Amino acid sequence: MADINTIGSQFTEFYYKTFDSGRNQLGALYRPTSMMSFEGGQTLGDAAIVEKLSGLPLDGLVHKISTQDVQPLADGLLITVTGQLLAGGETNPQFFTQTFHLRPDGGSFYIQNDIFRLVYGL
Amino acid sequence: MADINTIGSQFTEFYYKTFDSGRNQLGALYRPTSMMSFEGGQTLGDAAIVEKLSGLPLDGLVHKISTQDVQPLADGLLITVTGQLLAGGETNPQFFTQTFHLRPDGGSFYIQNDIFRLVYGL
Repeated sequence: MADINTIGSQFTEFYYKTFDSGRNQLGALYRPTSMMSFEGGQTLGDAAIVEKLSGLPLDGLVHKISTQDVQPLADGLLITVTGQLLAGGETNPQFFTQTFHLRPDGGSFYIQNDIFRLVYGL
Repeated sequence: MADINTIGSQFTEFYYKTFDSGRNQLGALYRPTSMMSFEGGQTLGDAAIVEKLSGLPLDGLVHKISTQDVQPLADGLLITVTGQLLAGGETNPQFFTQTFHLRPDGGSFYIQNDIFRLVYGL
C-alpha cells in the first residue's frame, strides 16, 4: 500500500477537482453511514450529502489547498486540510478547513466523516 | 452518557484552559500511542508531545474558540475546532484550526490524534 501521505494527497486532489468541476459527482465517495458537517449543519448519508452539496451557492469557486496533514487511524485515515476558496478575479479569498475520516473499502477509500468550516476574521 | 456535543465542549474548554495556563499539564490527556501534528511536524507519544508543547513560543497567548463540530466515530469522537490565538493588546489575531480524535478510557477520554494548523492569509 502507498504511504498515507500519498493516499491523502491523491484523495484530496481528486475530491476538490471533482467538487469544483461537478460536485453532484461526489456521491461515489460517501456511503449511507457517512456524516457531513458543513458550516455547522449536519447531513447523514450519501444521497442527502450529495443533495446538500449540489445545492450550495458555490458555482465558479475553486479550492486551493494550503496545507494537508494525514494521520493513521485504527480504521482508516484522518486528514485535515486548510486552504482558500477562490472566485475568478477575487482579491479577498475565503479561508477554509476541512477534516476527513477515510475508511478503506475494497482497495479504495470512502468518506465516513467530513467536517467543513470557513475560517473568518471576526 | 452526555451527548457528544456536551462532551466535546467540556473537553475543548478544559484543553484550551489548561493549554493557556500551563501546557506542561496536558500530558494527562495523551497516551503513549497518541499522535500530534503541529504545523506539519509530527510527534508520537504523550511524553514527547508534552515536551514539544512546553517548548512552543506561545507564552501569553490565549485560545478563543469560534466554532466546534463533533461527530461520532466507531472508537470515540471526532472534533474540529476553529478559533483565534490572541495576545494581550493584539489587533491582528492568528486564526487556527485543530482536530482531535478522542478515545474513551475508563469513563473519560484521551487524545489519540491531534492536528493543529494556523490558517494564514497568503
